[in-house]
Amino acid sequence: MYSLNVRDHFMIAHSFEGEIFGPAQRLHGATYVVDATFRRAELDADGLVVDIGLASQTLTAVLGDLRYRNLDDEPAFAGRNTTTEVLARTIHDRLVAAIHDGALGEGARGLGSVAVTLHESHVAWGSYEGAV
Amino acid sequence: MYSLNVRDHFMIAHSFEGEIFGPAQRLHGATYVVDATFRRAELDADGLVVDIGLASQTLTAVLGDLRYRNLDDEPAFAGRNTTTEVLARTIHDRLVAAIHDGALGEGARGLGSVAVTLHESHVAWGSYEGAV
Amino acid sequence: MYSLNVRDHFMIAHSFEGEIFGPAQRLHGATYVVDATFRRAELDADGLVVDIGLASQTLTAVLGDLRYRNLDDEPAFAGRNTTTEVLARTIHDRLVAAIHDGALGEGARGLGSVAVTLHESHVAWGSYEGAV
Amino acid sequence: MYSLNVRDHFMIAHSFEGEIFGPAQRLHGATYVVDATFRRAELDADGLVVDIGLASQTLTAVLGDLRYRNLDDEPAFAGRNTTTEVLARTIHDRLVAAIHDGALGEGARGLGSVAVTLHESHVAWGSYEGAV
Amino acid sequence: MYSLNVRDHFMIAHSFEGEIFGPAQRLHGATYVVDATFRRAELDADGLVVDIGLASQTLTAVLGDLRYRNLDDEPAFAGRNTTTEVLARTIHDRLVAAIHDGALGEGARGLGSVAVTLHESHVAWGSYEGAV
Amino acid sequence: MYSLNVRDHFMIAHSFEGEIFGPAQRLHGATYVVDATFRRAELDADGLVVDIGLASQTLTAVLGDLRYRNLDDEPAFAGRNTTTEVLARTIHDRLVAAIHDGALGEGARGLGSVAVTLHESHVAWGSYEGAV
Repeated sequence: MYSLNVRDHFMIAHSFEGEIFGPAQRLHGATYVVDATFRRAELDADGLVVDIGLASQTLTAVLGDLRYRNLDDEPAFAGRNTTTEVLARTIHDRLVAAIHDGALGEGARGLGSVAVTLHESHVAWGSYEGAV
Repeated sequence: MYSLNVRDHFMIAHSFEGEIFGPAQRLHGATYVVDATFRRAELDADGLVVDIGLASQTLTAVLGDLRYRNLDDEPAFAGRNTTTEVLARTIHDRLVAAIHDGALGEGARGLGSVAVTLHESHVAWGSYEGAV
Repeated sequence: MYSLNVRDHFMIAHSFEGEIFGPAQRLHGATYVVDATFRRAELDADGLVVDIGLASQTLTAVLGDLRYRNLDDEPAFAGRNTTTEVLARTIHDRLVAAIHDGALGEGARGLGSVAVTLHESHVAWGSYEGAV
Repeated sequence: MYSLNVRDHFMIAHSFEGEIFGPAQRLHGATYVVDATFRRAELDADGLVVDIGLASQTLTAVLGDLRYRNLDDEPAFAGRNTTTEVLARTIHDRLVAAIHDGALGEGARGLGSVAVTLHESHVAWGSYEGAV
Repeated sequence: MYSLNVRDHFMIAHSFEGEIFGPAQRLHGATYVVDATFRRAELDADGLVVDIGLASQTLTAVLGDLRYRNLDDEPAFAGRNTTTEVLARTIHDRLVAAIHDGALGEGARGLGSVAVTLHESHVAWGSYEGAV
Repeated sequence: MYSLNVRDHFMIAHSFEGEIFGPAQRLHGATYVVDATFRRAELDADGLVVDIGLASQTLTAVLGDLRYRNLDDEPAFAGRNTTTEVLARTIHDRLVAAIHDGALGEGARGLGSVAVTLHESHVAWGSYEGAV
């Protein structure tokens, strides 16, 4: 299995609902350093998992819809806690949709799965990996 | 598959038996920076893999029984070399026992596996991943 | 010159005023991974720059007044942009006040300076270093 | 599943053929920080995945054939782009051959797979994992 | 003293002349992860060391003249070894020239010094710090 | 000012005397990841702060006298706590002695200072910087 990873980051505000979240129920925020990892069994005709330039641009575009926002005000997350895990899944799904739309090129249709990891500090991260 | 990781560390002394260990047969020690990664197929009702606060506390508690000790004197490791791999397995098993005891909350019973990685330097780490 | 560093982190929401800040004028947030570096010319009687336990506890206490807050609502920052640089200075000043109050022990009065570095992502950080 | 990882690095020059590579079609180069991760289901008789000293020496030996070279001149890569993914596969295959040759000791024959990850910058890496 | 750091990277080919360089006399290459650290005694009117957006753009522009090149062919380095130290100085001087040209804004004229650090692997880096 | 840094690590056992050290009074141990940073105002005739190969070899040699040892048994530290700060100073002094002995080459006599930083975990480090 081959993998290729690109990294970017975004900064948001949000709050959580539910006693389990303790002081994180208050409006606060986070920097998420994001690793998008693309996987496939065999390389494409250029010897690549995916074009690294297109992968970076697509990740930046997907994060652009979240960057510098208060996620409590985003309709996409209405009624849901934007935990690290939920955000990882959201970014995963948007990357997979972009792959299906051809944003990563024709070769990228051979991708098997995408993992998205959000590093929220030097001691904690969450991720979601699923099929393309 | 969703994952959530928390990090902590502990410092111990130990020695190894067997010629293969060369100078590490002498009494020496290590800092282990520990990543405990919890995995599950679906999130719990709060949109979480596991409560990050409980996960951190439990990891700290498990490491507390090893911290600042000479592992050569610990009955739990009598007759065994406390290699990085063996320690990763030990911490894994103690975290899984804590999950079964409810220390990470009811939702944590839905966890599928736990991986424990011990970084022993900037160039080496060992890990064990197994089912909950 | 001797130095000792301890690391912790906090997560906040805030917004900036001024066109130079572009999209960061919107309410967003950040994780700040904080390095507090204590410096002195000679070690104390225990062979230490400062007791690492007290240093960690004091840093955690200082960050506790910022953690999980919307800094736009904090009186301490009224009328000011809470840039990374401003926050580094604020944390520095509070650590120095704690040193003067004896929170780091009598030996810590021999400290020469404190540097506070706030890592806001994998590509950017800001810091302030000043005398004790 | 147990894993053990050792890290080393090498520096090379190369160029790529194909419009998709843009400016990387020019002769340039890279530092690759290499993680070689060895995996197996059960530890060997010494409580190890593999002897860490032999693993490090073998990785260094394999990288020695690439180090400080212009890969465009290496017969092993004639007619192929030496992308990060291709290099990860090459190093994997050479490590597996070394395992079969006994370079990592008799116990290493119980290894299940090897993953090789090449970090080409602070924001990108590629890897290949395959059976021993 | 306040500092602000931005990070980027570039990849080049080069060779060194002189027996002291051993195998690095051969054509090879490197990834340099670059930290540009801007320092000043007092913040500007916006509470900044320098606008982080302009700092990042300027660093990217300066690195753009080196990126994906064989430095042995660059007239700017004719007759000189492009060691990590020499490259750090070159990038420093070009950043300082950009500051003097106003590329980082009027406020940046209050900068006191710039440090440029080039990380060439996980175990080695070189840097140059000088006045603006 | 130019700087060049090389990194290595060593693992030791030790204990501390004094109530301030709490549980670290017990025999335990540590991995120290060591950064040796060499500084000078002007480069040598080869465009270097110091030959990186000689610097790495010398650091490895200096650490070789500490590696895999119980520092409580080392005469060099009799009657002293081997805190991170004390060890940083010891390694600094031994590197400076090696420079004076010519181990880093004739050009290294132009070095101005050496800083030695010992990373004892992902959250703490100590260092000593002094003149050559």
